[in-house]
Amino acid sequence: MESILRQSRSMCPFLSKTSPATLRSLSTTATAHHVSPGAGSMSNLQVLARRCPIMGKALAVQSARIGNNALAGAFGGARAYSTRVSRARLHTSTPKEAQAVDIENLRSKQATPTARSTAPPAPPAAKFDYDGFYQNELDKKHKDKSYRYFNNINRLAKEFPRAHMASKEEKVTVWCSNDYLGMGRNPHVLKTMHETLDDYGAGAGGTRNISGHNQHAVALEGTLAKLHAQEAALVFSSCYVANDATLATLGSKLPNCVILSDSLNHASMIQGIRHSGAKKMVFKHNDVADLEAKLASIPPEHPKIIAFESVYSMCGSIGPIEEICDLAEKYGAITFLDEVHAVGMYGPHGAGVAEHLDYEAHVAGRPQGTVMDRIDIITGTLGKAYGCVGGYIAGSAKLIDAIRSLAPGFIFTTSLPPATMAGAKAAIEYQASYQGDRRLQQLHTRAVKDALNSKDIPVIPNPSHIVPLLVGNAELAKKASDMLLEDWGIYVQAINYPTVPVGQERLRITPTPGHVREYRDHLVEAVDSVWNKLGIKRTSEWASEGGFIGVGEASVEEPEHLWTDSQLEVDTVLKEMKAGGSAVNILEAILEKEHRATAQAVSAAA
Amino acid sequence: MESILRQSRSMCPFLSKTSPATLRSLSTTATAHHVSPGAGSMSNLQVLARRCPIMGKALAVQSARIGNNALAGAFGGARAYSTRVSRARLHTSTPKEAQAVDIENLRSKQATPTARSTAPPAPPAAKFDYDGFYQNELDKKHKDKSYRYFNNINRLAKEFPRAHMASKEEKVTVWCSNDYLGMGRNPHVLKTMHETLDDYGAGAGGTRNISGHNQHAVALEGTLAKLHAQEAALVFSSCYVANDATLATLGSKLPNCVILSDSLNHASMIQGIRHSGAKKMVFKHNDVADLEAKLASIPPEHPKIIAFESVYSMCGSIGPIEEICDLAEKYGAITFLDEVHAVGMYGPHGAGVAEHLDYEAHVAGRPQGTVMDRIDIITGTLGKAYGCVGGYIAGSAKLIDAIRSLAPGFIFTTSLPPATMAGAKAAIEYQASYQGDRRLQQLHTRAVKDALNSKDIPVIPNPSHIVPLLVGNAELAKKASDMLLEDWGIYVQAINYPTVPVGQERLRITPTPGHVREYRDHLVEAVDSVWNKLGIKRTSEWASEGGFIGVGEASVEEPEHLWTDSQLEVDTVLKEMKAGGSAVNILEAILEKEHRATAQAVSAAA
Repeated sequence: MESILRQSRSMCPFLSKTSPATLRSLSTTATAHHVSPGAGSMSNLQVLARRCPIMGKALAVQSARIGNNALAGAFGGARAYSTRVSRARLHTSTPKEAQAVDIENLRSKQATPTARSTAPPAPPAAKFDYDGFYQNELDKKHKDKSYRYFNNINRLAKEFPRAHMASKEEKVTVWCSNDYLGMGRNPHVLKTMHETLDDYGAGAGGTRNISGHNQHAVALEGTLAKLHAQEAALVFSSCYVANDATLATLGSKLPNCVILSDSLNHASMIQGIRHSGAKKMVFKHNDVADLEAKLASIPPEHPKIIAFESVYSMCGSIGPIEEICDLAEKYGAITFLDEVHAVGMYGPHGAGVAEHLDYEAHVAGRPQGTVMDRIDIITGTLGKAYGCVGGYIAGSAKLIDAIRSLAPGFIFTTSLPPATMAGAKAAIEYQASYQGDRRLQQLHTRAVKDALNSKDIPVIPNPSHIVPLLVGNAELAKKASDMLLEDWGIYVQAINYPTVPVGQERLRITPTPGHVREYRDHLVEAVDSVWNKLGIKRTSEWASEGGFIGVGEASVEEPEHLWTDSQLEVDTVLKEMKAGGSAVNILEAILEKEHRATAQAVSAAA
Repeated sequence: MESILRQSRSMCPFLSKTSPATLRSLSTTATAHHVSPGAGSMSNLQVLARRCPIMGKALAVQSARIGNNALAGAFGGARAYSTRVSRARLHTSTPKEAQAVDIENLRSKQATPTARSTAPPAPPAAKFDYDGFYQNELDKKHKDKSYRYFNNINRLAKEFPRAHMASKEEKVTVWCSNDYLGMGRNPHVLKTMHETLDDYGAGAGGTRNISGHNQHAVALEGTLAKLHAQEAALVFSSCYVANDATLATLGSKLPNCVILSDSLNHASMIQGIRHSGAKKMVFKHNDVADLEAKLASIPPEHPKIIAFESVYSMCGSIGPIEEICDLAEKYGAITFLDEVHAVGMYGPHGAGVAEHLDYEAHVAGRPQGTVMDRIDIITGTLGKAYGCVGGYIAGSAKLIDAIRSLAPGFIFTTSLPPATMAGAKAAIEYQASYQGDRRLQQLHTRAVKDALNSKDIPVIPNPSHIVPLLVGNAELAKKASDMLLEDWGIYVQAINYPTVPVGQERLRITPTPGHVREYRDHLVEAVDSVWNKLGIKRTSEWASEGGFIGVGEASVEEPEHLWTDSQLEVDTVLKEMKAGGSAVNILEAILEKEHRATAQAVSAAA
């Protein structure tokens, strides 16, 4: 026996890595897997064996044989039924037999259901308890406070950023929408959509290959390619699907592919990588040294994809795009940059952070050699700053054609409606030619952060347009959100685990061009009051404990804004206002000026 | 050496199943994997070893080590750069450091791109040739004729079923859209969408959890649950996503889950099953004996999902829903039924084939105990017969809440736009209360099939609304489609591999209520001419060869229609027309009567 184990260990890589004590423990410990009462239990060793590609098959065959015998023994009916069915006229895998459906057998006799012949008697063996399983999963969610309660929020196009709840009379101000620029109610977008609806109808009516390809798809993809200064673009149902389908396709098709993924990447990328079956290496958030160490560990000739974001939406941090491009070139990797929370918001044409990094070059219309030009695959959404729905990728013509030809998530689904594609194109073009909305959004963001900071409210510092308020407790975060909604008519969703780590729960505020001073003052008063009522920690309290994730940390300086003062023309206004007022007054003057310009642009477009 | 191999074989399940000759062949044959020039090649044995959970890891560690040493030896610069970077101030996985972005380093110097400092010198080692890989994948598609050329088809809401091509002057008749009932141009749907656009804007502005949940989602899901007589429903971006996310979530969460999948299942289900990582068993198309044998082979206490469709869209066959429900009950499985091509089209309320099977019970409002009531999970689309876009699942409240709480593809994506959800709800309610469209569609389908059959055109027989014409060759199918479009102004997309098996290439025609006699006569004339010009086989020619997939097979009887004569009220008209005209005349009379009723219903709704 000992000698067999020794031999086994020398041959089987699993056994050679596992100590006899562990094996003994594995073979006697029952699993925690949920099983129905009476179904018996498995040892953990059996569970592991099932995962082995060879042993798993052997076990499946064995248990099938046992299962059959057990069934046959327990009640002869099972085999009899099987024989009866196998004699029937059946469909097989080709349409040859498929068409030979015996409709009379298919169709119920159209008598009352009680009159119908019932199914053969069920075997007495224990069956899996599906309802119990669902309930158990839900119980876990309730227990760890990650169960989600959806708020019924109906954003009013004519009263942006206001919404009504289930009752039309109950109105609230929305402070957490990703319609960052209010393009969902932009008259130019809505006019385009109305016209397209009337001319081309509600839906596309097919996949891109079968009657769902049209001038709207062609024009939208052309606009997206131009926006990102790439050769081509491809539109998907959503950017979740774009990320998932593109990473899954590339990762599964590229031989020996390794995908290097930022630790804070969005769920859509994490799923795409998982679905690819490719090797995954997670590098520390925004840590280029860690990324380089991992790149260097992969054979140079193997394909590698570095997947990361420009704006990380829950904390507002910004990816080191240029440094990652440098590493990609050095190690022969391609870059996959998710600009979902940045498109429309950064850059002179709203193409995202990659465009923003070479602001002047893009203003001058010289994309060649810029950071954006160096990115291999840019992904973005039509559903946030562009106010509609859908997602896309942009890149080289060959890459786009390959994904178009290979990705099931692109091929086998109905195209976006013509009106959606036309509306999104109108939004992109509007934002490419007009900077007022995103500059005003940035100014409002600065004003909100300043006002909250002045009240000792813990804003997690970042250089972007996201305003995350640290709460640090799931129950408190939900209570704060509920109290803001019920007592103040302010809607800010609580962000809890698993969207953020436990202990980092927060309220995530997203100002828009429509969140003028009146709304801001109300928000700050409300947050201040809720923080008092619920006893949520202030910045100074976090500081007295040494600080946490950037809040109240002495060593942490306020990060510079990605949009500089000069890009926002703060300097110009400062010069204009020779009699120096307070900082807030100056800011308000800018806001008012921007606001008038925006209103004019919107009415001109409508 | 011989003894080691013998020992190995006794211990390692892979080696024990593989003959020495095969092993020898595997270890010397180079793989067909695309590799860059100079990157070397792998033996197939190495490829297999990489897939082994234990050996794969060992090989990865080894090759990483070799890669590192190679880099370090080839150029000292790599390590020096790595050291330099690791000293820099970096972001880590928490926002704590994330906010400490050095914006000046992030931002390019906004000089002309050529002035920027370049990346460190690239290592001389061979890099993967991404462009070559994409090109190679595209070349393969061109070679096997599976490369897709999209036709630019702009379906005109006011001239349904007409469309224009890239040029507005070039008009065609669309004969392959999945907007089966013309709901994409239904005035009631469009009116609802216009109003919702004006009131609630273009997009939802967030995920369902964060500001994207609203009265439109609540109402649509309520309508869907009612339609299918289930407790609850959940809306997704598309039914591709609904199928993928639901099967992936259930298959990965249910312990020891086995998913039994019909061999003709749609790509979305195949992907969902793959993504779940669960054990998959494919049963022969519509073969309940094969399904039962597979069910019986699984331990009774293990959870099992039977995934299948009601209407298989490429051949028009119908799944044996009731028999599968019987088997599911017998073996403790749950049923997952895709009604994508059936919702709106079958049943007294348009709930699909499952509803149609108990036609009278559902007319009487008694869903309890019906086939539809027995299905655990029904999935459907809002993008085909309902004319909009989006997908859904319907089932028990617990199941729906579990998927709502667990599926990343539902949680982490922007909601459908309010106008889309409102339009889809209007379409469902319209079709639930009015039968004219789907009955007219069925009558047109019968008329098209009859007319084509009378011309010896090979219609693949089936009991549903799909009219597949057998061509049997990829190049010919594309030529026939192109000729119909260019010479006749008729758009019918060719369906080639991989959507159908090689040798079963076809044209797939989908009549709608708008395809009146004039269009039908034109289609039949065109198809007849194209068949002549290209020398495509007629039914009689297939028959002379013994027949193929139901075409020209002596033993195959014309299948009964799922919609019976009495459900279509053919009998009534027959009685009314006492002076017996020809079959076509009688049919036309029915069509005309239905058409007037439809027109009245549409104008009443608008």
